[in-house]
Amino acid sequence: MHLQSTDIQALERRRRAALINSITGYKPANVVGTADSSGQTNLAIMSSLVHIGSNPPLLALILRPDSVERHTLANIRQTGVYTINHVHRDMVDAAHQTAARYGRDVSEFAATGLTEFWRDEHAAPYVSEAKVRLGMRLRQESILEINGTHLVIGEIIELELPDNAINELGALDPAIAESVAIAGLDSYYRATLQQRMAYAKPDQQPKRIESAAKV
Amino acid sequence: MHLQSTDIQALERRRRAALINSITGYKPANVVGTADSSGQTNLAIMSSLVHIGSNPPLLALILRPDSVERHTLANIRQTGVYTINHVHRDMVDAAHQTAARYGRDVSEFAATGLTEFWRDEHAAPYVSEAKVRLGMRLRQESILEINGTHLVIGEIIELELPDNAINELGALDPAIAESVAIAGLDSYYRATLQQRMAYAKPDQQPKRIESAAKV
Repeated sequence: MHLQSTDIQALERRRRAALINSITGYKPANVVGTADSSGQTNLAIMSSLVHIGSNPPLLALILRPDSVERHTLANIRQTGVYTINHVHRDMVDAAHQTAARYGRDVSEFAATGLTEFWRDEHAAPYVSEAKVRLGMRLRQESILEINGTHLVIGEIIELELPDNAINELGALDPAIAESVAIAGLDSYYRATLQQRMAYAKPDQQPKRIESAAKV
Repeated sequence: MHLQSTDIQALERRRRAALINSITGYKPANVVGTADSSGQTNLAIMSSLVHIGSNPPLLALILRPDSVERHTLANIRQTGVYTINHVHRDMVDAAHQTAARYGRDVSEFAATGLTEFWRDEHAAPYVSEAKVRLGMRLRQESILEINGTHLVIGEIIELELPDNAINELGALDPAIAESVAIAGLDSYYRATLQQRMAYAKPDQQPKRIESAAKV
């Protein structure tokens, strides 16, 4: 299939959304946990997480304030914190269900059967069923004027992951953590490692390295 | 493993980079093709692509101007266009090699053996070996003051993908297109569809749907 601007614009609205939401390829599947200042919790699946920097450790989310993501945004503004939890392959049904338009007074935890997990002073709930969990503090919010979406940048202030999913260089292997990827709006994928590559240098040929997950 | 801010900060620099670059989970693996105003080409692997909106179709990249990505950024500013090409599973070695710090006068196409493919008037090269290819026009560039990275937002003005990788709703299935995911800085993954979910509604239980790729 080969489309140009006018063809894309001419697509029926839902087919265009399906195509453009899937066209970047695999996206990380995460559920974002928040609470308002009275402790009412919220959980929302998001696939727009992107790395911004490692020192300090910064991640960004793109949020759409006209969607179910509006509760998440309101809560992050109220408390200044949130959690990011990888969707484990056994929790896909519940994670996807958080996308339903529940009312403000309904917690997606109760509605989907996922379990809140609170730690220390962090004013946002983690997901007990997730194996990789990040505690985030809001650092910057800005509006992308081009279409009104919001860029929410947070710092990782706490992280937890399975010891056996950390490789010899200190990186997370999301396949060993049994995290899933998402494509488009409705498709969830398992992954298997195809190959790892040595640090690329201009005067050397590409070189594969063996994976050796720590135990 | 359980780390807090001070623990993350105390990690050796390369281990911190390996951990934080991998902590979001699966990322899309793409190579970005550009040329300067004299036609000198450049190709760079990127994993920071994120969906911004479907109408108009907007995608954003996070670029680090102190990295090999500086040539890409300079070219996008000169010509206003670029291409995004999915990394197919057979081109991982070459795609990864584009991350090497080649000089300004070296094209990563020539250096890695990937093939330039030019179309119409678009002043940036596509990658012939890729199965999913997007022609992009720069719409907005902004600097994230928090750490000096650049947010580059572009509009999809052309797209090409294999017919058999489009499902019945009009979405791309990246597994059928044989695209790969990346985790961290060095690990490339193949994926298989685990499940597809029906549109989530508050008054309905989560429902799986069957995949039916068009042929």
